[in-house]
Amino acid sequence: MSEIKKVVLAYSGGLDTSVIVRWLQDEYNAEVVTFTADLGQGEEVEPARTKAEALGVKEIYIEDLREEFVRDFVFPMFRANTIYEGEYLLGTSIARPLIAKRLIEIANETGADAISHGATGKGNDQVRFELGAYALKPGVHVIAPWREWDLNSRESLMNYCETHNIEVDYAKNKKKSPYSMDANLLHISYEGGILEDPWAEAEEEMWRWSVAPENAPDQPTYLELTYEKGDIVAINGEAMSPATVLEYLNKVGGENGIGRLDIVENRFVGMKSRGCYETPGGTIMMKAHRAIESITLDREAAHLKDELMPKYAKTIYNGFWWSEERKMMQQLIDYSQRVVNGDVRVKLYKGSVDVVGRRSDDSLFDESIATFEDDAGSYDQKDAAGFIKLNALRMRIAASKGRNLLED
Amino acid sequence: MSEIKKVVLAYSGGLDTSVIVRWLQDEYNAEVVTFTADLGQGEEVEPARTKAEALGVKEIYIEDLREEFVRDFVFPMFRANTIYEGEYLLGTSIARPLIAKRLIEIANETGADAISHGATGKGNDQVRFELGAYALKPGVHVIAPWREWDLNSRESLMNYCETHNIEVDYAKNKKKSPYSMDANLLHISYEGGILEDPWAEAEEEMWRWSVAPENAPDQPTYLELTYEKGDIVAINGEAMSPATVLEYLNKVGGENGIGRLDIVENRFVGMKSRGCYETPGGTIMMKAHRAIESITLDREAAHLKDELMPKYAKTIYNGFWWSEERKMMQQLIDYSQRVVNGDVRVKLYKGSVDVVGRRSDDSLFDESIATFEDDAGSYDQKDAAGFIKLNALRMRIAASKGRNLLED
Amino acid sequence: MSEIKKVVLAYSGGLDTSVIVRWLQDEYNAEVVTFTADLGQGEEVEPARTKAEALGVKEIYIEDLREEFVRDFVFPMFRANTIYEGEYLLGTSIARPLIAKRLIEIANETGADAISHGATGKGNDQVRFELGAYALKPGVHVIAPWREWDLNSRESLMNYCETHNIEVDYAKNKKKSPYSMDANLLHISYEGGILEDPWAEAEEEMWRWSVAPENAPDQPTYLELTYEKGDIVAINGEAMSPATVLEYLNKVGGENGIGRLDIVENRFVGMKSRGCYETPGGTIMMKAHRAIESITLDREAAHLKDELMPKYAKTIYNGFWWSEERKMMQQLIDYSQRVVNGDVRVKLYKGSVDVVGRRSDDSLFDESIATFEDDAGSYDQKDAAGFIKLNALRMRIAASKGRNLLED
Amino acid sequence: MSEIKKVVLAYSGGLDTSVIVRWLQDEYNAEVVTFTADLGQGEEVEPARTKAEALGVKEIYIEDLREEFVRDFVFPMFRANTIYEGEYLLGTSIARPLIAKRLIEIANETGADAISHGATGKGNDQVRFELGAYALKPGVHVIAPWREWDLNSRESLMNYCETHNIEVDYAKNKKKSPYSMDANLLHISYEGGILEDPWAEAEEEMWRWSVAPENAPDQPTYLELTYEKGDIVAINGEAMSPATVLEYLNKVGGENGIGRLDIVENRFVGMKSRGCYETPGGTIMMKAHRAIESITLDREAAHLKDELMPKYAKTIYNGFWWSEERKMMQQLIDYSQRVVNGDVRVKLYKGSVDVVGRRSDDSLFDESIATFEDDAGSYDQKDAAGFIKLNALRMRIAASKGRNLLED
Repeated sequence: MSEIKKVVLAYSGGLDTSVIVRWLQDEYNAEVVTFTADLGQGEEVEPARTKAEALGVKEIYIEDLREEFVRDFVFPMFRANTIYEGEYLLGTSIARPLIAKRLIEIANETGADAISHGATGKGNDQVRFELGAYALKPGVHVIAPWREWDLNSRESLMNYCETHNIEVDYAKNKKKSPYSMDANLLHISYEGGILEDPWAEAEEEMWRWSVAPENAPDQPTYLELTYEKGDIVAINGEAMSPATVLEYLNKVGGENGIGRLDIVENRFVGMKSRGCYETPGGTIMMKAHRAIESITLDREAAHLKDELMPKYAKTIYNGFWWSEERKMMQQLIDYSQRVVNGDVRVKLYKGSVDVVGRRSDDSLFDESIATFEDDAGSYDQKDAAGFIKLNALRMRIAASKGRNLLED
Repeated sequence: MSEIKKVVLAYSGGLDTSVIVRWLQDEYNAEVVTFTADLGQGEEVEPARTKAEALGVKEIYIEDLREEFVRDFVFPMFRANTIYEGEYLLGTSIARPLIAKRLIEIANETGADAISHGATGKGNDQVRFELGAYALKPGVHVIAPWREWDLNSRESLMNYCETHNIEVDYAKNKKKSPYSMDANLLHISYEGGILEDPWAEAEEEMWRWSVAPENAPDQPTYLELTYEKGDIVAINGEAMSPATVLEYLNKVGGENGIGRLDIVENRFVGMKSRGCYETPGGTIMMKAHRAIESITLDREAAHLKDELMPKYAKTIYNGFWWSEERKMMQQLIDYSQRVVNGDVRVKLYKGSVDVVGRRSDDSLFDESIATFEDDAGSYDQKDAAGFIKLNALRMRIAASKGRNLLED
Repeated sequence: MSEIKKVVLAYSGGLDTSVIVRWLQDEYNAEVVTFTADLGQGEEVEPARTKAEALGVKEIYIEDLREEFVRDFVFPMFRANTIYEGEYLLGTSIARPLIAKRLIEIANETGADAISHGATGKGNDQVRFELGAYALKPGVHVIAPWREWDLNSRESLMNYCETHNIEVDYAKNKKKSPYSMDANLLHISYEGGILEDPWAEAEEEMWRWSVAPENAPDQPTYLELTYEKGDIVAINGEAMSPATVLEYLNKVGGENGIGRLDIVENRFVGMKSRGCYETPGGTIMMKAHRAIESITLDREAAHLKDELMPKYAKTIYNGFWWSEERKMMQQLIDYSQRVVNGDVRVKLYKGSVDVVGRRSDDSLFDESIATFEDDAGSYDQKDAAGFIKLNALRMRIAASKGRNLLED
Repeated sequence: MSEIKKVVLAYSGGLDTSVIVRWLQDEYNAEVVTFTADLGQGEEVEPARTKAEALGVKEIYIEDLREEFVRDFVFPMFRANTIYEGEYLLGTSIARPLIAKRLIEIANETGADAISHGATGKGNDQVRFELGAYALKPGVHVIAPWREWDLNSRESLMNYCETHNIEVDYAKNKKKSPYSMDANLLHISYEGGILEDPWAEAEEEMWRWSVAPENAPDQPTYLELTYEKGDIVAINGEAMSPATVLEYLNKVGGENGIGRLDIVENRFVGMKSRGCYETPGGTIMMKAHRAIESITLDREAAHLKDELMPKYAKTIYNGFWWSEERKMMQQLIDYSQRVVNGDVRVKLYKGSVDVVGRRSDDSLFDESIATFEDDAGSYDQKDAAGFIKLNALRMRIAASKGRNLLED
């Protein structure tokens, strides 16, 4: 342990990471650099400065990364209609590579030889932080206190604070949530507590970002979303930055009870885990992006994206954002988006997002061909006969050779 | 045209297929056998008998295929969590292979050398009917009047009726829907009319199976669905047949405003098409099936299914149900379902389906490992360090060889 | 037929396409523009000029497309290690999109409203020509005489020549091959004749580009191939243009009996077809490209390419070179090749290509880690224990929950 | 270490595993059960008995698993045309799950609580052994001495023998190969030594199972292989058991210089590794199996298999034979093989395997359709026009909407 001289810590300012600061100072005899990022989690980040100072930290990084987060991570991911295991919009997963990147950049700036984080040894986040760190600085040391120490309960952490003179006013004044939570502009997540029983329904008071559908307005809200190259650039005609788009959609979505999710997911480390998520803006974006693609993307382009998506989602979920394979898939995805321009109209109502209209100068929807009315010869129905005959040929041959295609 | 002696027609009893009966008799000088199936479309099938008789048809087949439809087609498809282009639950697609199968079986029974259907030359259904027919009877003749005749408007059809003495009371008495519709136990679909403008919102009066979410009850409805081998076998503890399950879920789902969908999809014949769908029961089944799988399926089993699903969906959408590739995928899918047993609890409310609980004797969810509390040693957090180190190794080597993994 | 005013014909100068010139002039009363390309098929293209002139053609295009063919079509395809159905290197498929492109460009230059080709109605080539043509000029007319006329034997073609005063010296003087053949710089193919019996061995005299392995030199030949971004840029230290690379490898490969293939393949139109191919240079390139990738590509990058390859191969085989999906996959593939630089040493001997060495400045092969000798701590073997434990976790949980993983 | 009472060791009888016996006895104070399998590695297994007895082992298992190995592991894998990274036939990978299975079964029979093996901490084999063990007995202890001890050179092992009175006559008398080798009926592999330089050509004297192509007979050898459900059941008309088939093909293949391979592969643990392999019989089987499939499998069935194969290969390579995903894929694969019956004729000559004929009662090859001659109307060439038109429709629409499909 004596080798480590300086550690950059992903620091929230909360109890756990405050203990980690002191523990790193004591156990590793290392100087600690703190890094606190505003990713839109909805809490002030500036108070982390005073707390870090109180712990004797000299190099304190506090940064607003919201625009970078949405522009370079959330939006690229949504271009792929990314969903993990059919349900999860990857709200936590997508924030980790940015944090890992900044940890390493700060390590390089400050001459630190290690990074540290407050993720446990059972979860995905340790993997995501560390894969990012190793990829960007292969010789870096990673200190994951939760895998090393024996402070495995809140009580032992509190005791540690007391014996090490760490101010814990924040710990006393707030009722501790029974859930393990994570939040950023894309979502807020809940794990633990009664959720550890997958048969138990989540309590209404757990949810923080959305009203219950039952309490949402009785009138629907309509939005018009404008896309350029697969990203939303304006809402209801007003141009907005990426982070502003997501903030706006979170607000309106949350007010309409949109984006709650309750699932059991498979972690990369091998276990199943119950999680609840609120992703109001992301839920709207997912529906709307598919809608704008539905009129602008070529069929096989869309299908190719759909076939690759589960792998792309898994790559991000497992923490391989900085990998070659993710970048290769991103090239394919981003290329497809050059025509994904236009408007989508959505209706939000008590937990539901419905697409009610889509239009685009790049639309491939051809009314003159699709119509049930007279198409003035733009499509020759007789072509279909040959199309079907040859599509059937391999089966016709098989059947004529004696194979019974009714049999399983 | 003179070769055809007897034709089995997929006959609804409506205007279009009644005209086809007479047209086949006249143009092909062929005997017509009618086949009318109850697939749960919600209309009486027995009146088709009188109408066929009035048209001089001697061999009339009227069959209730609802149980076979759900058991052998809908349920197997739902085992794969099948969605086409991210949205469509394949309600029309999945009924066609069963109809094709019965058309061919009846052709074999009656000694017919041709089959016929009322699908247009622009759509997917002609493909689905005919691929099925050719696969099961490679030498069969297929007559698709819409690709041959010049009766391309309602008016010309009505004139045909008049000049050919076809009773059209049904045509006079009912206001004709402006939409092209299809229905079976899984869904009802709408195309055409104002939907041909993808920017136009569907009118509320179009929807037939579901109330508007705004008009659904203010209290949520909870259901408990029991699965065996991936299929629902009981609801709220009451054992039900496959068709009964779907009827029940359609009723409750429709009352709660569930299952409306408005999309632009890519047809197999190459064009884009706007469609609206109501799939109340299917929407509930989709969510619930993923939930029961989430606790019973191995992670990589689930991911493998997810990766194959788009191909499986496309195979069905394009009409290749009877193909070897669909059967091969079905083997893989069905094998995985032997452990998909247990209960799912869902909450239905004003258009939303939320899973609120899942349990199973075959659950792989292990609270003792997943817990945030003390796990009594069932998981060694230190294993994660090595796990991450070796997962990172290829990236660490690349970075140490000078590759900059931050670069695109 | 009267609408067509001018047709651009893919013209080889041979019997068939000479008949087509006259047939188009007569049947369509259209002016014919001929297009003859040197794609490295090994026959003079200039004689086509005299023949076309003799047929009254005024606009005659004769072009050397060898460099463009290899640089923009063959090389990009080989970057993906593309093989159709495990065996076929797509020698015919990859030439068609270039011909289609030039046909359309010439149609645009000459104001032609149609294109024509000499491919039959049973094969893949008609599809490849026409998909390319429609993609690049959606309103173009396509005339495929073999699908229209009744000149279905060599004899009827000869009669046509006689009655229409077409010079057929070439037809008289040469013994007609019993095979249908196609050639370009990538390969020569044989179909028909005795090959229509898949149990019959091809005759030795059929093969034209390679000696029989039995007749190849008794000494092996070694080559050193230099790659830049996935393409060969030098052989044995000598820089070469793309076409020169392939010509060189064809020569040396053919001398060593390399590149013969005898397969039954599945055509896009639905039937199985026996084909024999000689692809000397391509066979060498395939082995060597995998070898240079083996030391320069990240593992998951390589696996992603392998997983996509069958789809990419099928896309090209089926004629969709100009499609969005091919271009999307090409983006992914080409991106991966930026590090595929270095040298591969191959040994050619009596039909075999063996890789015997590979080296690169971009190598990811790390001897210090891979060594069986002492690695001086660059790899900690203990990491493997945790790696395995967590990779096994999902199976350990399943087994501990009572599942018997020995059972099928 | 004191918990372990009895260990089942995969015991070869060689120096390394003999040292492990004693080391386990000393370090773990555990009783050792040895398990030695004849998998066709070409060495006597019975001598392992005397050696184990000399080491005080009381429970000694020596088993001939050749038939089970080929029937239940090699053959099922070849049904999928399985190749890892385009080259490797998985000769080592496929033997490990069988050994793991027997280790666990013997542990259950003998009441052992641990298993042990002689694989290093850098390779794939540790993963394959241990994943199998954990899957089949989740609570088992695994002892991997190479990850634990400090006997990291041959010299230290020899010293250990001396100080622990282990007989090492076999070590003294034989010149030690400079390569790390593994052999079973499917292949023999070489790693280490000069192979650690990927640019260095393997020495001729390294290869053990095949003659150099230069030294192979000047006359080709022809074989006729008979398939039932995808497996070879007879050669040249003589019925043979699975292991006999492979032994026979190894012999004839090796005599003809077939099956040598020299590659750099990507290990599951994250590093690249140079390996040389001899797989004479497997190389023949791979070619021949594709050939019999080429006439019996439906096109899309074959393509589906090709698309899944890389994942299937990776699953086996990485050690997940006993996983749910491997079994699911096996269901799909095996189902497809019910029609893979018939004969393949191959020509072996100086390192090459060429297919020269294939025939089957289940053939889908239809000469009457495929022929270049008159097909008597079994295929209507005019169908192709419609087929192409509709396949082109999406591109025609895109182009007519202004997209330039020539652009990248």
